Amino acid sequence: MTETVLSSATKEVVIGFDRPFVIIGERINPTGRKLLSAEMKEGDYSRVESDTLAQVAAGAHMLDVNAGIPLADEPRILAEVVQLVQSLTDVPLSIDSSIVAALESGLNVYQGKALVNSVTGEEDRLEAVLPLVKKHGAAVVAISNDESGISEDPDVRFDVAKKIVERAQDYGISPADVVVDPLVMPVGAINDAGRQVLKLIRRLREELKVNTTCGASNFSFGLPNRHGLNASFLSMAIGAGMTSAITNPLHEPEMAAVMGANAVMGADPNCGEWIKKYREPAAEGAAEGAGGRRGGRRRRRNA
Amino acid sequence: MTETVLSSATKEVVIGFDRPFVIIGERINPTGRKLLSAEMKEGDYSRVESDTLAQVAAGAHMLDVNAGIPLADEPRILAEVVQLVQSLTDVPLSIDSSIVAALESGLNVYQGKALVNSVTGEEDRLEAVLPLVKKHGAAVVAISNDESGISEDPDVRFDVAKKIVERAQDYGISPADVVVDPLVMPVGAINDAGRQVLKLIRRLREELKVNTTCGASNFSFGLPNRHGLNASFLSMAIGAGMTSAITNPLHEPEMAAVMGANAVMGADPNCGEWIKKYREPAAEGAAEGAGGRRGGRRRRRNA
Repeated sequence: MTETVLSSATKEVVIGFDRPFVIIGERINPTGRKLLSAEMKEGDYSRVESDTLAQVAAGAHMLDVNAGIPLADEPRILAEVVQLVQSLTDVPLSIDSSIVAALESGLNVYQGKALVNSVTGEEDRLEAVLPLVKKHGAAVVAISNDESGISEDPDVRFDVAKKIVERAQDYGISPADVVVDPLVMPVGAINDAGRQVLKLIRRLREELKVNTTCGASNFSFGLPNRHGLNASFLSMAIGAGMTSAITNPLHEPEMAAVMGANAVMGADPNCGEWIKKYREPAAEGAAEGAGGRRGGRRRRRNA
Repeated sequence: MTETVLSSATKEVVIGFDRPFVIIGERINPTGRKLLSAEMKEGDYSRVESDTLAQVAAGAHMLDVNAGIPLADEPRILAEVVQLVQSLTDVPLSIDSSIVAALESGLNVYQGKALVNSVTGEEDRLEAVLPLVKKHGAAVVAISNDESGISEDPDVRFDVAKKIVERAQDYGISPADVVVDPLVMPVGAINDAGRQVLKLIRRLREELKVNTTCGASNFSFGLPNRHGLNASFLSMAIGAGMTSAITNPLHEPEMAAVMGANAVMGADPNCGEWIKKYREPAAEGAAEGAGGRRGGRRRRRNA
């Protein structure tokens, strides 16, 4: 029953076995978003604001915040964005950078217990990131690759994850505060990518007993109907034991798949969330013993 | 690597571990279809014909055929429908009745190796159905309930399945020719129904080493957006090891979930089926090095 507790100043979110799957909104990230990148560099955070509100409204439980802009002052920008986002929403944040100084700068201003995204199994990363995680009482995403790259063998990736968890313990960080990213490879390039990662997710849960997260959309890279394929993958990953994902909450097929998987896993008591989202006015009216025509009004009142 | 081989006079279909999931079309069944029921009773099989063609066109690998009409001569009708359907399509059939004389009548006219749907763990059913399965060299769906009803405990349902497999062996029927239906309960009524059945599917595959099938749509009974919930359930059941389902192939969300799950399980080499179904004309043209505008024509030529 591993639980990773994250928080803002006023709100806790728990990533955990047998809990509803945690969606970490991925949109506040200039990588591959030229316009956002240019705006952020100029200090225009209007799109960060709208992305914050839209992702939370769409059901994100946490938000990932990244300010990786080439030739920009990433530590300053990341700290500004962390403060801005925390002023707009109470969901906890994942502070995302490959630059240790930027992680530190973000953590310095963060209110609550953040998720640091990320550390790999590379020695220099372990030595730079883990003390920072410990110092700030944060949790950390552990990516299962190391100096030798990303192995296609899920057992090797398991061993890398295990090493990171052990090293984190050496620094006084509990395994419950290490959320492993097993690395989702594109199935269009590696036919066995799905089975590999499902097996790895199961081992991470049953043997290493850690929470897991992933960038789910990488699975469908290069293929048509990506949302449809991501939906199947997400449901199956949750079935195998994955407990969170860094993904786009504005994509309805993926969100439906996650909600459906919560119901299948018994993590949606009485299917309450599913019913709230999908019941139709007429059906609702009938369930309440009222005429179907009044359902629409009732629905608004309940919303 | 359990494989259940079914056939018509000219075509084989294999339900098996690590193979593409087998869809058994459920539509030729008068239960709950008043019009079809009345027509079939009068000897009007026009709707059976159209349901046959539509289901095969939609991707059904096998068809379930049921003639359960109150106060009708079910053995005669089932035999007529089996012969008609076999004259229209070469996909193997599942011969479906609760009346042993009707199963026998259907098997007598069937060409190939049929799937008999079904036997339960009840003594009188085992004694009546299994000799018939053996005599005709058929395979059989084993439903995991017995005289005491349907247990909510997946371990009890496992034991019933095990008993049926053992009794089948006593009659000379190989475990590979027993396809277990673990019984999918509605999650709206039993919050743990999903986890229960996923656990049971895993045990049936790993311990009893049998193929599995189910009536997947029962999972969403009473809930809104049934197709969406069925889609999550089907993907996750396939992830847990389920190898076939009796379902409606005309429902696109469920079929997409099955195709996506095949890709995740590595059972769609190079994602060929996924790409064939979902690629867009422009993307296809680009992939072939031709202009996007010609994609539409190329697509028709390839179809």
